[in-house]
Amino acid sequence: MDMSASKEELAKFGYLTRDEELNYLQEVSDICIRNTKKYSDSEEKVLNFLHPEELSTKIDISLRRESSNPDEMKSILEKVFKFSVHTMSPNFYQQLFYWGDCWGIGGQWVAEILNTSAYTYEMSPVFTIMEKEVIKEALKLWNFPSTGEGYICHGGAQSMLFALNVARNQYYPQVKTKGASSMPNVDIYTSEEGHYSLEKSASIIGIGSESIVPVETDDLGIMKMDALKAAISKTLANGRVPFYINATAGTTVTDAYDPINEIANLCEKHRIWLNIDGAFGGSLIFSNKHRHLLKGAHRANSVVWDFHKMLGAPLPCSVLLLRESGQLKAAQGISVGYLFAGKKHYDVDYDLGNLSIQCGRKIDNFKVWMAWKARGSNGFEAHVDKLYENAEYFLNKIKSRDDFRLVFPKAEPRLKICFWYLPPWLQKKTLNEEDKKYLNAVTHKIKEVYVYEGLLYLATQPLKKHPFFFRIVIIDPRKGPRELDRVISIFSDIGSKLKKEDFNV
Amino acid sequence: MDMSASKEELAKFGYLTRDEELNYLQEVSDICIRNTKKYSDSEEKVLNFLHPEELSTKIDISLRRESSNPDEMKSILEKVFKFSVHTMSPNFYQQLFYWGDCWGIGGQWVAEILNTSAYTYEMSPVFTIMEKEVIKEALKLWNFPSTGEGYICHGGAQSMLFALNVARNQYYPQVKTKGASSMPNVDIYTSEEGHYSLEKSASIIGIGSESIVPVETDDLGIMKMDALKAAISKTLANGRVPFYINATAGTTVTDAYDPINEIANLCEKHRIWLNIDGAFGGSLIFSNKHRHLLKGAHRANSVVWDFHKMLGAPLPCSVLLLRESGQLKAAQGISVGYLFAGKKHYDVDYDLGNLSIQCGRKIDNFKVWMAWKARGSNGFEAHVDKLYENAEYFLNKIKSRDDFRLVFPKAEPRLKICFWYLPPWLQKKTLNEEDKKYLNAVTHKIKEVYVYEGLLYLATQPLKKHPFFFRIVIIDPRKGPRELDRVISIFSDIGSKLKKEDFNV
Repeated sequence: MDMSASKEELAKFGYLTRDEELNYLQEVSDICIRNTKKYSDSEEKVLNFLHPEELSTKIDISLRRESSNPDEMKSILEKVFKFSVHTMSPNFYQQLFYWGDCWGIGGQWVAEILNTSAYTYEMSPVFTIMEKEVIKEALKLWNFPSTGEGYICHGGAQSMLFALNVARNQYYPQVKTKGASSMPNVDIYTSEEGHYSLEKSASIIGIGSESIVPVETDDLGIMKMDALKAAISKTLANGRVPFYINATAGTTVTDAYDPINEIANLCEKHRIWLNIDGAFGGSLIFSNKHRHLLKGAHRANSVVWDFHKMLGAPLPCSVLLLRESGQLKAAQGISVGYLFAGKKHYDVDYDLGNLSIQCGRKIDNFKVWMAWKARGSNGFEAHVDKLYENAEYFLNKIKSRDDFRLVFPKAEPRLKICFWYLPPWLQKKTLNEEDKKYLNAVTHKIKEVYVYEGLLYLATQPLKKHPFFFRIVIIDPRKGPRELDRVISIFSDIGSKLKKEDFNV
Repeated sequence: MDMSASKEELAKFGYLTRDEELNYLQEVSDICIRNTKKYSDSEEKVLNFLHPEELSTKIDISLRRESSNPDEMKSILEKVFKFSVHTMSPNFYQQLFYWGDCWGIGGQWVAEILNTSAYTYEMSPVFTIMEKEVIKEALKLWNFPSTGEGYICHGGAQSMLFALNVARNQYYPQVKTKGASSMPNVDIYTSEEGHYSLEKSASIIGIGSESIVPVETDDLGIMKMDALKAAISKTLANGRVPFYINATAGTTVTDAYDPINEIANLCEKHRIWLNIDGAFGGSLIFSNKHRHLLKGAHRANSVVWDFHKMLGAPLPCSVLLLRESGQLKAAQGISVGYLFAGKKHYDVDYDLGNLSIQCGRKIDNFKVWMAWKARGSNGFEAHVDKLYENAEYFLNKIKSRDDFRLVFPKAEPRLKICFWYLPPWLQKKTLNEEDKKYLNAVTHKIKEVYVYEGLLYLATQPLKKHPFFFRIVIIDPRKGPRELDRVISIFSDIGSKLKKEDFNV
């Protein structure tokens, strides 16, 4: 079964025989499974935190002229597990993603070992028809015309970039060949809590970050319609063109939903492109109970929606939807003789690579397809509904205690909840400026303790003029009251020991 | 060990218990290993080709409201293997990548199950220090200043985009905020055989594809210096600015190397940014014997170099190198309070995410690091040298036969070899226009036969005015005379049966 090269020759290249390779991979899978089991235990550290210099002494990261053998490589993999963040831990609440489902992970293992690329049907027949199926079902779910199109992007930032680029090409097609100096000065609106990838996208595509108009938000992080209208008027008064509104469905820090339907009215009136950044919140589309937060979404020109965030598919896999076909190829395709054009033995409309700006492409669509196939739309619906139950549970707990305080007391249950822990000397009082300095320091101190001890992974955030606060992300439906209560005890165990005199503010 | 949710609750979300999840993954790894073993056999089909509509009847790709169970999912994975391209087959010669090494694949399995992102040190401490090590060693190898910097990109096209964007930011920093209308009209030079991702990049970043000046190449696909000089003069005469030269090291079709050192002289003279597209050919940097094809590369401003092409790391993982630090952050970074800025418990210079335009990022760097660690620079050197031996072997074989003809008779051994198969009635003669029509048809016919029968995966190409030809990519050092001879027999078995009267040209 092995090819020409002898075992000795293979060793010169650092290769094993095929049988040895497969044995090694079998052992790697054992390492994966054993360690995942271990770190799924809530008593294990969510991270063994070390500073970079220290970490470098624990793993021999140096690259050399000499090769390493399978045993050395396996021992490195064990250490990689030990010193990485254990997203499979019940104590992981920090990011907008988590250790989600084995369907996607299994799919990725298969995609990795097949080592193919999703740019032509020829190279990835199975994955190509699956991607088309995902897009077809997603268009249905979002109530987009069936004549729409879509693409599975390598992450939400790529979807955001492509959406903006497609919009530009629809309004100013000459830019593709002539450059951005051939278009008028345009303004792009997004809430001041909107994701930074929009600013990066505007910079890179040559519109310039100053074209981004951050629109004021209310206390909960929702874009104010008055502010948006005023911003559009200002654009017009300045002789610029209102071009693109990015409505955020689930902001990064507070999980706020912009009023899409009202924004759509404005877009229609002024012929502005409407993009929905539903990277996080787009998944509510599955839930009858919570879909109302996306009201009006079917009127958008484009939607960005990540399966790797709220729904737990392995990251990254982002779905970009467009209400009309042909827009991706028009904006991003070119004629490439050796790849997409010329005579082929099949229908080249199945070659998806020319919809993108990438050539080689990881099989990210398979994760979405596998997760959706395995869990069904019903599974995703139950998932979303359970998350809101958990959020309500945690919110009520926090409200009922003197040692916790909500950053936004009027917040309804959302999947990110922002709060402070108040040590005894700050409880039951309105905080003055000095208190806020203490609170800031307390937040940093508590995080430092739980991170160094590996008890919990939960982010701290700045926002507007507030002292740094904690933000818990509630997206794993496997967790429930038991895990959420544990979070509260970890805080109170650490926090109740803090003394005012330990802080130098 | 499992969390709050009961088995019944989990089933509603489409989740398994943690133990069941790990059992499932164990079985997935068995499927991977068993199928890889099977399709590593040269007697197995390299692809079971089906047209899209037919393939859709073999796998139930429909997405529904209902969930599927583990057995159904495993049966799908078996079919995914059956109907995908078997890159592990000894008969796979089509793409610039192949089923390379188990080190990278094992690394990816670990990265997938850890499900983390490489944007902050906090989320990926181990992978962050490894990425820094890869960049450090790569800078050394390319003889770049140690004060340079780099980034592991998600594929060569992303590296190409970032290199162009960084160059623009160095020359015209105001574009980041003010947009591309604030810069002069610039020209970008690349050989007419250069990769299309440069054109896509120029379009997307708002410089416009018309700024791309395709420079004439010689018979072998090498950029002509006279033509380049003339192009620069024309730019100046037109009142435009010569901005960027992309020197290709290893063109896609003919594996040509542009004369980097001479190009660097021109770049110095005119203050033009020099980028090397070494996506394919950059790997020669490891070989004492073949590095001369990259002479002058250390003078470049940026280098694009893919580990997933010639060296066999799982795709995609591309190394972008820059000769000066701070350029990536200057071009692509912004201040993001909740993520990269603010007080943290470690040195935030380790947060690599802000060098990119992406937020979430796959752990691609681990594949590079694993492959390099396992195989050592010596392994890569032996690998490259062996490829050239194979290329020489194949080239000589082709030359010695009447039924094969080289597209470029004067070609030296390169890792892509372009040839025709000549049926009896076309052998030993100078081809006239009618003959060329036959040859075109013969090429398509032969490919159709070997693809449908799953005997071989080897691309056909158009180029300039030539009839379509075959291009073999010689990048797997495990293959040798035995496999290359087999390729030749497959051609002559199919081709010798062709009859002139079967073609209607």
